[in-house]
Amino acid sequence: MADNKKTVSEITSMDEDFAQWYTDIVKKAELIEYTSVKGCMVIRPYGYAIWENIQRILDSMFKKTGHENVCMPMFIPESLLQKEKDHVEGFAPEVAWVTMGGNEKLEERLCVRPTSETLFCEHFSNVVHSYRDLPKLYNQWVSVVRWEKTTRPFLRSREFLWQEGHTLHATAEEAIAETEQMLNIYAQFCEEYLAIPVVKGRKTDSDKFAGAEATYAIEALMHDGKALQAGTSHYFGDGFAKAFDITYTSKDNVKTYPHQTSWGMTTRLIGAIIMTHGDNNGLVLPPAVAPVQAVIIPIAQHKPGVLDKANELKTRLEEKFRIKLDDTNNSPGWKFAEYEMKGVPVRIEIGPKDMEANQCVLVTRHNNQKTVVSLDELESALEEKLREVRDGLYAMALENREKKTYACKTTDEIKAALAEKGDGFVKAMWCGDEECEDKVKELTGVGSRCMPLEQEHISDTCVCCGKPAKKLVYWGIAY
Amino acid sequence: MADNKKTVSEITSMDEDFAQWYTDIVKKAELIEYTSVKGCMVIRPYGYAIWENIQRILDSMFKKTGHENVCMPMFIPESLLQKEKDHVEGFAPEVAWVTMGGNEKLEERLCVRPTSETLFCEHFSNVVHSYRDLPKLYNQWVSVVRWEKTTRPFLRSREFLWQEGHTLHATAEEAIAETEQMLNIYAQFCEEYLAIPVVKGRKTDSDKFAGAEATYAIEALMHDGKALQAGTSHYFGDGFAKAFDITYTSKDNVKTYPHQTSWGMTTRLIGAIIMTHGDNNGLVLPPAVAPVQAVIIPIAQHKPGVLDKANELKTRLEEKFRIKLDDTNNSPGWKFAEYEMKGVPVRIEIGPKDMEANQCVLVTRHNNQKTVVSLDELESALEEKLREVRDGLYAMALENREKKTYACKTTDEIKAALAEKGDGFVKAMWCGDEECEDKVKELTGVGSRCMPLEQEHISDTCVCCGKPAKKLVYWGIAY
Repeated sequence: MADNKKTVSEITSMDEDFAQWYTDIVKKAELIEYTSVKGCMVIRPYGYAIWENIQRILDSMFKKTGHENVCMPMFIPESLLQKEKDHVEGFAPEVAWVTMGGNEKLEERLCVRPTSETLFCEHFSNVVHSYRDLPKLYNQWVSVVRWEKTTRPFLRSREFLWQEGHTLHATAEEAIAETEQMLNIYAQFCEEYLAIPVVKGRKTDSDKFAGAEATYAIEALMHDGKALQAGTSHYFGDGFAKAFDITYTSKDNVKTYPHQTSWGMTTRLIGAIIMTHGDNNGLVLPPAVAPVQAVIIPIAQHKPGVLDKANELKTRLEEKFRIKLDDTNNSPGWKFAEYEMKGVPVRIEIGPKDMEANQCVLVTRHNNQKTVVSLDELESALEEKLREVRDGLYAMALENREKKTYACKTTDEIKAALAEKGDGFVKAMWCGDEECEDKVKELTGVGSRCMPLEQEHISDTCVCCGKPAKKLVYWGIAY
Repeated sequence: MADNKKTVSEITSMDEDFAQWYTDIVKKAELIEYTSVKGCMVIRPYGYAIWENIQRILDSMFKKTGHENVCMPMFIPESLLQKEKDHVEGFAPEVAWVTMGGNEKLEERLCVRPTSETLFCEHFSNVVHSYRDLPKLYNQWVSVVRWEKTTRPFLRSREFLWQEGHTLHATAEEAIAETEQMLNIYAQFCEEYLAIPVVKGRKTDSDKFAGAEATYAIEALMHDGKALQAGTSHYFGDGFAKAFDITYTSKDNVKTYPHQTSWGMTTRLIGAIIMTHGDNNGLVLPPAVAPVQAVIIPIAQHKPGVLDKANELKTRLEEKFRIKLDDTNNSPGWKFAEYEMKGVPVRIEIGPKDMEANQCVLVTRHNNQKTVVSLDELESALEEKLREVRDGLYAMALENREKKTYACKTTDEIKAALAEKGDGFVKAMWCGDEECEDKVKELTGVGSRCMPLEQEHISDTCVCCGKPAKKLVYWGIAY
């Protein structure tokens, strides 16, 4: 066809060069475009529509569990950032500093928020006085900035979009319950809506969020056997409350420090979707967040009645689904490849023969299976297909993860498993000593990802030092 | 009642001190809280929920007219900002500059976007090549930063939330039509959903957006007779396209510069709502954007069955409306004052006597009118009341504006009208000369707000110099 658009053949095979395959997809599926702002990207309409769907679903889950949205300033005065010692140590090296306003040098420089604990703390200290003011269950949808040296679209960029939940509770028990609740919501969201299986676990101390007492995370395994942290939920105890002098008067009239949490998910989820479900034909999108859930492609569209019929189906289906009709003059073959590349979950083919038989053809993107369905039952058939796609994607991702998860008892076993089967999750016992954690990474290349909440018993002794083991740890190479 | 909450009596009367009345409302209705970041605010849940409703309605209007959401970086390299001469002159003096990333000085400083024309232009130059790539109809919901000297919540803050539409078209005609379409959408949104009457007009050259060929705006009149610009829509011609080298190949295979627009609305709309509809009891919210459309207040709630009934009504109404039930132990009188202050459009009272009669009482916030309605028809009665509130608010605002709009033929008439009737819109003819525009302001205190699209004839001659008049201008004191 005379068309200046990209063709599928331009996507690098993932077996040949996984990183290039990834870059090809984000560019050619028109998710992002690079800018002259180093490490920052434009999220294009097709990419942003995925994020809008993620937002809509997550936001509704947050609201159902009683959370309210707010908006904090994007700037943090240096003195405010410095109030919690561990927090500033963790973040100060990677923030962008505003030093001039207009033509004047600022008296105090401001950092562009890398995260907003300090701002929420200041606000809590202003508005929380009594036990009646608790809990505060807040969230905000904003972008944050971290001055990364090396960046990759969605996975690690200097600016990224996220939500950050910040909550304040009367007791430690309530705050811990909140931390767990949000971890579970994140896991449910990834598994049910993104079809990405995740491991729920707790981070080791070396990998905790700066200022947290405990950090929980969900970890997913990508096609290439590398691990991706898809969401985190932190329990702060009353450390921030003490640093920021947040107190409330209890029912017994005692001045008390409240307990705090924060939790976040980011546009990196889009990277996780690409690397969990994508294939050599391009993107594969889970139906819940796909901007287009089904694309209608007319066959022999010049024949009488075909485009009318395709339009009729579009109007019918649009009431329940996100539908696109491609009635351009490109060939059906070109269109098939285009929407495969863009990861549209279901393709609907309708041509003169189908019309005669009162039917159409549904093709599912992830396994290329064709089903002929009666036009009388199109809505229910499409609904079923979308459910099939979600279930199929989840099963394939789970199979991949299980194939690439290796239970090991010694570092030699780890090395052998990785050499033989490629990168993946390593399940191995750990004594709890940070030295061993470091040494495992040094010897084998895999670092601790998390201590899964569902513990298993692989061996009695630490994979590294041979002393009695305390925890099963998932190890891996992280994105 | 033993309660540590604010009481209505703390709101300053608007006749006594309008500015303090405004500040009291934004604080006491819990719309915002101040922060240690000068000129920036926390938008609290009740304030943010108003913004979420504004966003939802506007976003749907944008999407229905074919616009797609995207997300640009928040930073603009200095060299990029400088590409369009008028634009940089207009914005450079009021931007925040990032000069450090982590511990390193940046090679080129970055400003935090005050608006994103330059970023969209760079992106357009990367992705637009052929007439087939046009039009591009983009929008983004982000925050922007302008380093204002004096700030006021919602009206003028260093950071504010907004949407900015940016579109690119093959022809000037198409771009002008887009500019007009968006101005009309803005006016429709303000009038229908916010119940704020607006004047649609074109800005004089002295008041154009930096880099625009023409700026259109909608202007509203506040309670105190001051004018507030509620939205703007700009036509750029091909000036930015030339500065950023954006070209497309036309159908005739000619390299052509496309034509461009941008348009924006901000959180300042919340300020407009407060100052158009608020009264001495507090906020008055238009139903379309009120976080709570009706609050149920049980009367004698300790009596058997009252709270059960109130809960039953809540469950019923929640299916169609945003409903709150206040079943706390505060007195009904305290609750009435509280939700009046928070501007909830309708109050629903239900007590033992109402229950016996199978009825409840609806009280509309803006005029304190009570209506007894049968519980069998509650949904339709509430829907009608909400429509009545919107219509009533609009009528009151329009009456206020008309009362405060003065047609004048000379600057002496302007001075007399303002002295006698207070601040307001002045309608007066203008010769088109910028000197006269300046002189009117100098002599009378009112500046040009816009040249209304619906022109009227007040006199033949310029209000200032007496030469032949070209345009009717609305003059006023601007927020």
